[in-house]
Amino acid sequence: MVHPNGSPNGTNGVTKDRSKLIPFSSRLKEGRALAQDVWSIFNAANLPADCINLGQGYMNFAPPEWIKDAANDALNTVAASHYSHPKGRPRLRQALKKYYDPKFGRDLDIEQEILVTSGANEGQYSVFVAFLEEGDEVIMFEPFFDQYLPSVTFNGGKPVYVPLHPDVSHGKITSNDWVIDFDELRRAISPRTKMIIVNTPHNPVGKVFTRAELEGIAALAEEFNLLVMSDEVYESLTFDDKEHVRIANLPGMWDRTVTVGSAGKMFNATGYRVGWLIGPASIIQPTLAATTRIVFCSNSPLQEAAAAGLEQVVDRKFFEQQRKEYNERRQILIDCFDDIGLKYTRPEGSYFILLDISEVTWPENYPFPESVKGRGRDFLACWYIALEFGVSSIPVSEFYCEEHVNIGERFARFAFCKDVATLKQAAERLRELKRIVNKTSA
Amino acid sequence: MVHPNGSPNGTNGVTKDRSKLIPFSSRLKEGRALAQDVWSIFNAANLPADCINLGQGYMNFAPPEWIKDAANDALNTVAASHYSHPKGRPRLRQALKKYYDPKFGRDLDIEQEILVTSGANEGQYSVFVAFLEEGDEVIMFEPFFDQYLPSVTFNGGKPVYVPLHPDVSHGKITSNDWVIDFDELRRAISPRTKMIIVNTPHNPVGKVFTRAELEGIAALAEEFNLLVMSDEVYESLTFDDKEHVRIANLPGMWDRTVTVGSAGKMFNATGYRVGWLIGPASIIQPTLAATTRIVFCSNSPLQEAAAAGLEQVVDRKFFEQQRKEYNERRQILIDCFDDIGLKYTRPEGSYFILLDISEVTWPENYPFPESVKGRGRDFLACWYIALEFGVSSIPVSEFYCEEHVNIGERFARFAFCKDVATLKQAAERLRELKRIVNKTSA
Ligand SMILES: Cc1ncc(COP(=O)(O)O)c(C=O)c1O
Ligand SMILES: Cc1ncc(COP(=O)(O)O)c(C=O)c1O
Repeated sequence: MVHPNGSPNGTNGVTKDRSKLIPFSSRLKEGRALAQDVWSIFNAANLPADCINLGQGYMNFAPPEWIKDAANDALNTVAASHYSHPKGRPRLRQALKKYYDPKFGRDLDIEQEILVTSGANEGQYSVFVAFLEEGDEVIMFEPFFDQYLPSVTFNGGKPVYVPLHPDVSHGKITSNDWVIDFDELRRAISPRTKMIIVNTPHNPVGKVFTRAELEGIAALAEEFNLLVMSDEVYESLTFDDKEHVRIANLPGMWDRTVTVGSAGKMFNATGYRVGWLIGPASIIQPTLAATTRIVFCSNSPLQEAAAAGLEQVVDRKFFEQQRKEYNERRQILIDCFDDIGLKYTRPEGSYFILLDISEVTWPENYPFPESVKGRGRDFLACWYIALEFGVSSIPVSEFYCEEHVNIGERFARFAFCKDVATLKQAAERLRELKRIVNKTSA
Repeated sequence: MVHPNGSPNGTNGVTKDRSKLIPFSSRLKEGRALAQDVWSIFNAANLPADCINLGQGYMNFAPPEWIKDAANDALNTVAASHYSHPKGRPRLRQALKKYYDPKFGRDLDIEQEILVTSGANEGQYSVFVAFLEEGDEVIMFEPFFDQYLPSVTFNGGKPVYVPLHPDVSHGKITSNDWVIDFDELRRAISPRTKMIIVNTPHNPVGKVFTRAELEGIAALAEEFNLLVMSDEVYESLTFDDKEHVRIANLPGMWDRTVTVGSAGKMFNATGYRVGWLIGPASIIQPTLAATTRIVFCSNSPLQEAAAAGLEQVVDRKFFEQQRKEYNERRQILIDCFDDIGLKYTRPEGSYFILLDISEVTWPENYPFPESVKGRGRDFLACWYIALEFGVSSIPVSEFYCEEHVNIGERFARFAFCKDVATLKQAAERLRELKRIVNKTSA
């Protein structure tokens, strides 16, 4: 984000900046809301034109034809050109029910237990608006999806960080080797703790939380009466037969859990901005009150597209096919990293892979820009790799609090939500890393 | 909105409502956030199936073909299927610049002075997030667009109400006869006043603020260093050659004004959820930090459609044509009210007309539902008219604070953003009001 206190461009001769006198809210001073974030630093605009973008987590391929067709059909109706009900269009809520009833083992009430939002993002923001009281603490596991932090602080919440600990002792770790220290988690809970955010499959680790882990979290949530926000936007993307377990389905957990989903992630349509929340009326109804004021409703034509997606996805075996494709994409980077001899975390879900860059080196006098200096070592590594090898990635320390930067700076996140040709070309370039790794490893 | 503390439907045998223990945020207890709002009471679902809906402010006709075509083209590109920059798609920001540069007499900077939002609604919410400090006062004129109230209180703001005063002394008033008492406005300003919201053309009065009025507001904004949010979503809809004046263009005002626009209102596409903010970098940049966290970005395909709209609108003389059409629609209701002999406010902008219902009566023992009892007299009148005459409208006291309900309850708001056939049919039904008016008027 650009810092707002730059001088305005007085294009029509207005030079006196009176508005300096109108300060922005102090809530923007927290949660890194005004810091230059990793996305602007590693933005395509700042990188060489031919750099392959494995940084940002969106696809370079289109949503399926039958979903686009539904969007187009919707554009040609009057009703889907106008406001939807703030809860979401009935057809979409019905399609969500059809898809999720068996997953939750419930007879979901489309009036009270399902809420369509403007992307998962706005849904999560609405939950914070609806539930956070000034000073309420929200526990998030590190590394965390970076939007959580300012979304919590904007609404008076205080983030409390609990790192996942990677087992770096052996060379072949999977996302399952990133573990919760349950004593640490318990110690993080205070009388002000209101909520705990779970994200499974996990961005950026790729971890699919095990039933035992979720049971451990659930037990604490019950003991301390916490709300659980379970961000499952990557639910349809698991590998190696790893089972996606829903914390909402554990005994006693339905009443305190809100599950977050995203049509963007499910259907390769991140720009549609359609997401949803599923949970008990006691969570969904206050959140509806919040989202109604924030956006009023999500856009109508693309809600119809998402509805068509969910209606047909089972019969078309779309997710089975999608998992196969993502598996192939994942394999290209895995093979590449194996070839180079660099350690990485084999992800069991989502579409990110963490490369251990602790053995990547660069010339001492390399001309790094100011934006990456003074940040974690990973900022330098990612910059160097992007500029010298032509593949961009994201430094993982961005997803940690100051105190825990040392854990994150060991890793760079590569997104494999790109077509095979792009990934192959990226792999070819990345294989050149061999040169600079060999130099250092004994 | 449904009150959230109802019992959850324990569909899979979960009966213990543990979540009762997790209270929603106290911010929902203010700003009528959980009250049953007028939109749910006068919802089609609660009214007879054949009731003509002149209540809600969305069109029963489609956006123009060339805009839908652009949306469809966008759906067929990969880029417009994925995330946009949080500032908005470059093409749309460029189109906004092209359209608005002459209107503002500026060379707008698309990086710093234009921000695309998820409808005007989310744009306004983002400004409140970015600028309100706990306890900051926000002045709004009554009647006010009902979303302002909870959007302000959710972000710690305190609404301060200043009524527009209708001159009810004569029978033929226009929206210009609803006036600001500038002494009253001045008295409403306190050391905690941060912002003043202007809405021109005005919903629901139809008032197009005069230059003199805006100068009066501007002088106070300068004197007390206030931010001005100028909601101009109906800017393209003025009648009777009334000039739309932009408060941002008054001397010294650019630096403290954010102007709000809406593709939904401009192009009969309320369901597209594309809006924008235009203002100095010092206002737009903090607001960008807010919107980025709230929604991340607005949906991509319909941003492209809005861009096509703005690119072509001047050459196609679209607004000229649209004004002619709305003028015809307005006339149908005006003629009808003249025929009945009921007073109304002739609107000079927007697509609402206020009918003075003080002379409409109903049988003493009429079976009103609980939802309208104990509210303003207008709630009863609107209910009675909807049920007995088959045309729904919205009671205007909803847009006033408790203290000023007596001003609002004199009026019912009819929206004329409907096709001619529908309006004619509505007028035919409404002419029957003669029966019950004649009874009372001397
Ligand atoms: C973990 C996680 N949650 C939520 C989101 C936001 O999803 P959406 O695009 O539906 O807002 C993302 C997007 O990257 C994500 O990675
Ligand atoms: C005065 C006013 N401002 C803002 C809006 C919201 O516009 P949008 O649909 O673009 O969010 C409305 C919608 O009715 C309105 O009447």
